[in-house]
Amino acid sequence: MKFAMIGLGKMGLNLVKNAADNKHEVVAFDLNADFVKAATDYSDLVTPATDIDDMLAKLPSPKVVWVMVPAGVPTNSTIDTLIEKMDKGDIIIDGGNSNYKDNLEQNLRTTAAGIKFFDAGTSGGMEGARSHGNFMIGGDDAQAWKTIEPLFASISEEDGYLYTGKLGSGHYLKMVHNGIEYGQMQAIAEGFEVLEASQFDYDYEAVAKLWNHGSVIRGWLMELMEDAFSKDPHLDNLAGRMHASGEGQWTIEEGLDLQVPTPVIALSLMMRYRSMQDDTFTGKVVAALRNEFGGHAVDKN
Amino acid sequence: MKFAMIGLGKMGLNLVKNAADNKHEVVAFDLNADFVKAATDYSDLVTPATDIDDMLAKLPSPKVVWVMVPAGVPTNSTIDTLIEKMDKGDIIIDGGNSNYKDNLEQNLRTTAAGIKFFDAGTSGGMEGARSHGNFMIGGDDAQAWKTIEPLFASISEEDGYLYTGKLGSGHYLKMVHNGIEYGQMQAIAEGFEVLEASQFDYDYEAVAKLWNHGSVIRGWLMELMEDAFSKDPHLDNLAGRMHASGEGQWTIEEGLDLQVPTPVIALSLMMRYRSMQDDTFTGKVVAALRNEFGGHAVDKN
Amino acid sequence: MKFAMIGLGKMGLNLVKNAADNKHEVVAFDLNADFVKAATDYSDLVTPATDIDDMLAKLPSPKVVWVMVPAGVPTNSTIDTLIEKMDKGDIIIDGGNSNYKDNLEQNLRTTAAGIKFFDAGTSGGMEGARSHGNFMIGGDDAQAWKTIEPLFASISEEDGYLYTGKLGSGHYLKMVHNGIEYGQMQAIAEGFEVLEASQFDYDYEAVAKLWNHGSVIRGWLMELMEDAFSKDPHLDNLAGRMHASGEGQWTIEEGLDLQVPTPVIALSLMMRYRSMQDDTFTGKVVAALRNEFGGHAVDKN
Amino acid sequence: MKFAMIGLGKMGLNLVKNAADNKHEVVAFDLNADFVKAATDYSDLVTPATDIDDMLAKLPSPKVVWVMVPAGVPTNSTIDTLIEKMDKGDIIIDGGNSNYKDNLEQNLRTTAAGIKFFDAGTSGGMEGARSHGNFMIGGDDAQAWKTIEPLFASISEEDGYLYTGKLGSGHYLKMVHNGIEYGQMQAIAEGFEVLEASQFDYDYEAVAKLWNHGSVIRGWLMELMEDAFSKDPHLDNLAGRMHASGEGQWTIEEGLDLQVPTPVIALSLMMRYRSMQDDTFTGKVVAALRNEFGGHAVDKN
Repeated sequence: MKFAMIGLGKMGLNLVKNAADNKHEVVAFDLNADFVKAATDYSDLVTPATDIDDMLAKLPSPKVVWVMVPAGVPTNSTIDTLIEKMDKGDIIIDGGNSNYKDNLEQNLRTTAAGIKFFDAGTSGGMEGARSHGNFMIGGDDAQAWKTIEPLFASISEEDGYLYTGKLGSGHYLKMVHNGIEYGQMQAIAEGFEVLEASQFDYDYEAVAKLWNHGSVIRGWLMELMEDAFSKDPHLDNLAGRMHASGEGQWTIEEGLDLQVPTPVIALSLMMRYRSMQDDTFTGKVVAALRNEFGGHAVDKN
Repeated sequence: MKFAMIGLGKMGLNLVKNAADNKHEVVAFDLNADFVKAATDYSDLVTPATDIDDMLAKLPSPKVVWVMVPAGVPTNSTIDTLIEKMDKGDIIIDGGNSNYKDNLEQNLRTTAAGIKFFDAGTSGGMEGARSHGNFMIGGDDAQAWKTIEPLFASISEEDGYLYTGKLGSGHYLKMVHNGIEYGQMQAIAEGFEVLEASQFDYDYEAVAKLWNHGSVIRGWLMELMEDAFSKDPHLDNLAGRMHASGEGQWTIEEGLDLQVPTPVIALSLMMRYRSMQDDTFTGKVVAALRNEFGGHAVDKN
Repeated sequence: MKFAMIGLGKMGLNLVKNAADNKHEVVAFDLNADFVKAATDYSDLVTPATDIDDMLAKLPSPKVVWVMVPAGVPTNSTIDTLIEKMDKGDIIIDGGNSNYKDNLEQNLRTTAAGIKFFDAGTSGGMEGARSHGNFMIGGDDAQAWKTIEPLFASISEEDGYLYTGKLGSGHYLKMVHNGIEYGQMQAIAEGFEVLEASQFDYDYEAVAKLWNHGSVIRGWLMELMEDAFSKDPHLDNLAGRMHASGEGQWTIEEGLDLQVPTPVIALSLMMRYRSMQDDTFTGKVVAALRNEFGGHAVDKN
Repeated sequence: MKFAMIGLGKMGLNLVKNAADNKHEVVAFDLNADFVKAATDYSDLVTPATDIDDMLAKLPSPKVVWVMVPAGVPTNSTIDTLIEKMDKGDIIIDGGNSNYKDNLEQNLRTTAAGIKFFDAGTSGGMEGARSHGNFMIGGDDAQAWKTIEPLFASISEEDGYLYTGKLGSGHYLKMVHNGIEYGQMQAIAEGFEVLEASQFDYDYEAVAKLWNHGSVIRGWLMELMEDAFSKDPHLDNLAGRMHASGEGQWTIEEGLDLQVPTPVIALSLMMRYRSMQDDTFTGKVVAALRNEFGGHAVDKN
C-alpha cells in the first residue's frame, strides 16, 4: 500500500526503509530536508514531500498518514494540522510515544471529522523498526484497521503486532510496556552492581551470556548486556546517568490514579532521577539533622 | 562419568534423568525410597543406594557426589556427613540454593580434608533440569573442575554453564540471579495489574504473546506468562500470595552489607511478604493516627 | 474583623467557633441548614446566611470570604461563583486542601477581576482549628495580606501562621507538609509493626510515652499514638485500611515533574493503596510465574 | 549511688556530668587519659580509674558498671572482660548502640556467672545525655532493675526511661526507634527537597518554625531543622552525604527475618548509601541498555 510518513528520525527512517523493503510506497516528509533525502535515496519506492500539503496531494484516498515525530507538542500539533487538512475516511496513525490521554482528546476531534485514528505504540528499538518491529495498535474503527493491518503485518516481527481495541489502548499498552522495561532494567542493573561490589571477580560478558542460555532471567535485555559488556567489560567509558522519557512516569501516575501500587516501577524511575543529581538537598537536610542531634561530623562543601 | 546424586526431589530427579539421557551412570540416593525407585525405574544407568555409605561404596575414585537436597540445614548436615566419609581427592558438588556464606565455611573444612568442593547454582526451573539446565559453578580447584566439566557440559543448555571462579562465587551468582528474577517478576506483575485496573479491556495472553515477538521486554518470564494466561485468562483460580525462598532476601542483605542500594529487589521481596499478610499492624497504626488528628473515620474489625 | 465562612463541616465549624472566641464576627453559610444552626447557636457573633448572595450582602466592604468546603469540585465551583459575585478589592481565602495548580488558574481570573486571592493551607487537625490552628498562606498582594493577618494571628497557635509569598505557595507548602506527614506516619507504623512481630512483649502505650519524653523521635504524631494505644492497647478494634486524600499523591507527582526522587513519600502512599486491596493481580501474576518455572505450589482462590 | 562509666566520649562524658549533677559518684575510665581528666575535672564526685581492675577496685559491692564505648567489637570485648572480672550479683549495663543479638549471646554467659545484665538504649542525642536523657532498658532480673532505677530516674527527662522487660528488649527498642528516626528524617528531607526544587521561594527557617507551632508534623527533628536553617539558610555549607550507623540496617534485616515489610525504613537507608556513591554501576548498566536498544546517547566518563 501507499502511505505517508511524517518524521524521519531514528525510528521513522528505519520504518520507511522497512516498508520499502516490503514493497510499500512511502511519501516521506520531515522538516529537515537532509532526512527526506536520506529516505528517498534508499529506494525508488520512497517519494519526497516538501510540506504537509504536498505530502497529502501525493496520496491516494483514503489517505494514510503515519506520524513519527517526537511525542508531546510536536506530535500533537502535527495531528492538529492533519485533522484540519484531511478528509472523512482518511486515516491517521500516531506512532510516537504519545500519552494516551492526548490521544483520547484528539479522538473526539478526529471522530467528529470522520477521520479514522489509530494510536500505535512501537517497541523493539531501532533495530526492530528497521526489519522486525513490535506494534500495539488501538483505534475505534475495527473496519478501518483492516485497511492498515497488511502494512503492520509486513513490517513487524512474526506475531509482532496486535490490534488492542479502543483508541488509546495502543499507547496505554506501550506505556505499561515501558514501565515494565524500567523495572526490568533496574533489576538487572542492581544485580550487576552487587556483583561489582562483591568479593568475587566475575567476567560480566560471560555471566550475561550464561544467563541467556537456559536461565530463568534470559531475555533480550540480558542479550543486550552481553553485547555491551563485550565492548566495555566494566562499562568504564560510561557515566551512570540514567536519562528517562515520559512513559515510566506516566505508568506510575496511572497507577496512582488507579490506586494500584507500582513500587518497583516507581523506584526504577526515581533512581534514574537521582542519578541525574550531583548532590541532593535531601542529603543536606539529613546531614544537618545528624549533626544537630548527635554531633555527627558532616562533609563540607 | 559415574557420580552420585543425593536428593531426588523435583530438581534432583530431573537432573538424574537428564544425566542418564546423556549416558552418565548415576548412583541415586534419597531418604524417601519411593523417590529412589522413581529414579532407578527410569534407566538402567541409574543404580539405587540404601544409604550414604552404600552410595559411596558404589562409586569409583575419585568419588563425585552431587548434593541436591533442600537448602539450609538439610544441605549443610549432608555436606558435614560427606566431609567425614569422603577421602582426599573426592569431589562434592552443592547444587542447592545454598547461602554462599555457608559454603565459605564448609570450604575451610573440605580444603583441610583435601576434598574438592564446588558450589553449583542451578537455574532454568524443573524443565531446564530435565534437559537443558543452566549452571553457575564455583570452586577453588580449577584442575578438579576439568573432571566434572563434561558432566555439566552434557546436561546443560548449549553455553548454559559457567565456571565462575573461587568457591562461593557459584551460589553468589545464583543469589544475584534470583534477586534480578524477583525484580523482573514484580515489574511484569505491576504492569499487568495496571492493565487490569485500566479502562481498557486487554487479552493478556495476546499481550504476552505480542511482547514476546520483537518487543524490548521479551524473555522467558514473559513466555511463561503467555502460557499461564492461556490456561487462566484472568488468573481467577489463583490467590495472589507470593511465597519466597531465601535468595532474594540474601541479595538485599548482601547489598546492605556492601552499602549498595537495591531498592527494586528489596521492594519486590517486601511486596511478597506483604502479600502473605491478611491485615497489618502498620495499617492499624496509620488508621489510628488519621483518626486521632483528623477525626477521619476508621474501618472497624 | 467581620468575615464570612462557607462550609461548616468538621474544620469550618471549629474555625468559626475559634474566630468567635477571638471576638470576630462571622457570617456563616453551608448548604446544610443544620450546620448553619450549629454555628449560630454557638455565639451571638455568628450570623446565619441562607445563600451566597445573602452572605455577601451581610458583609462590609472590602468583603472577606473564607471557603472551607471539600477540595476539588466543591471548592472550585464555589470560588467560580464568588469570582462572579464579588467586587474589586474583595478578598477570597481558599482554606481547603486544594491543589495549588487549581489556585494558579483561579488566580488569573481573580487578578483580572481585581479580587484579592489567598490560598491558606491548614494543619493541626480539628483540635488545632478549634483553638490553635496552623496556617500557611500565599497570595500575590502583600498589602491585602495585612487586612487579614489579624484574623489568622488571633486564631492560630502562637507563631502558628506564615505568609508564604506568591499565590499558590500556601497550598503547595501544605501539600509538602502532608507528604512529610505520610512518610512520618508510615515510618512510625513500620516500627510498631516490627515490635509487634518481635520476640519481645512491649507495652506500646508506655513505649510511645517514653519516646515522647526526650527521644529523638518525639513529636505530636507520637503523642497521638500514646493516646491511641491508651484506648486500644493492640489496636484490635481497627482494620488496617489506610485511606488517603490527595496531597500525598500530589507531592509525589510534583516530585516526578521536578525530577526529584521522593521514595519514602511514594512508598508511604503505595502501602496505603495496597492496604485497600484484598488481593492483587500483581500477586496472582507472580504466583503464576513461580508455578510455571519452578512447579511451586500456588494458593488457590 | 556509686557506679563506674567505661567510655568517656561524646555520650559517656555527658552522662558522667549528668550523673554528677545529680549527686551520683562516678568512677570514670577510658583508654584515653585526656578523656578521664575531662571527666574528673568536672566534679569532685568523679574519681579516675587507670584500668578496669582499678575501676572495679574502687566500686562497692554489688558493683555497677556502665559500658559506653563504640558498639560492636569494642563493646563486646569490654563486656567479655567484665564477665571475667566481675562477681555474682554485680551489674553490667550496656549503654551503646549494640545489636540485641550480641546481647542475647552475652546474657547466656552473664547469667551463668550470676552477673546481672542490662541493655540500655539511649536516645536524645548529646544534649539529652547531658541533662535529660531518654533510656529504654531491658534485663531479665526485675529485682536488680530496682537497684539501678534511681540512677536512670535522676538523669533522664521526666518520664524519660522505661524498663522494657527481657534482656535484649532495650536495644531492640532502640534499634526500632532508630529505624523510625531514619524514616522520619528522610520524609522531612524529601519534603524540603521538593520545596527547594519548586517554583516558590520559601524561607526554610520560617517554614520549620511554623511547622513546629501547631502543625501535625511538629516534633524535635523539625525543631532541629529550624536551628540548622537559622545557621545556614540553604545548607550551602554541607555536602549531602548521609552517613549511617548500624541500627537502621538491623531494623530492615529484622523486618526481613520476621517477613514484615519496612519499605520506608529500607528506602531511607538505601538513599543514604546512594548518597555515599559518586557514580553507580547500576547507572552504567541502565545507560548501556538504553544505548543498546534505542541508540540513546550516553554520558561519557
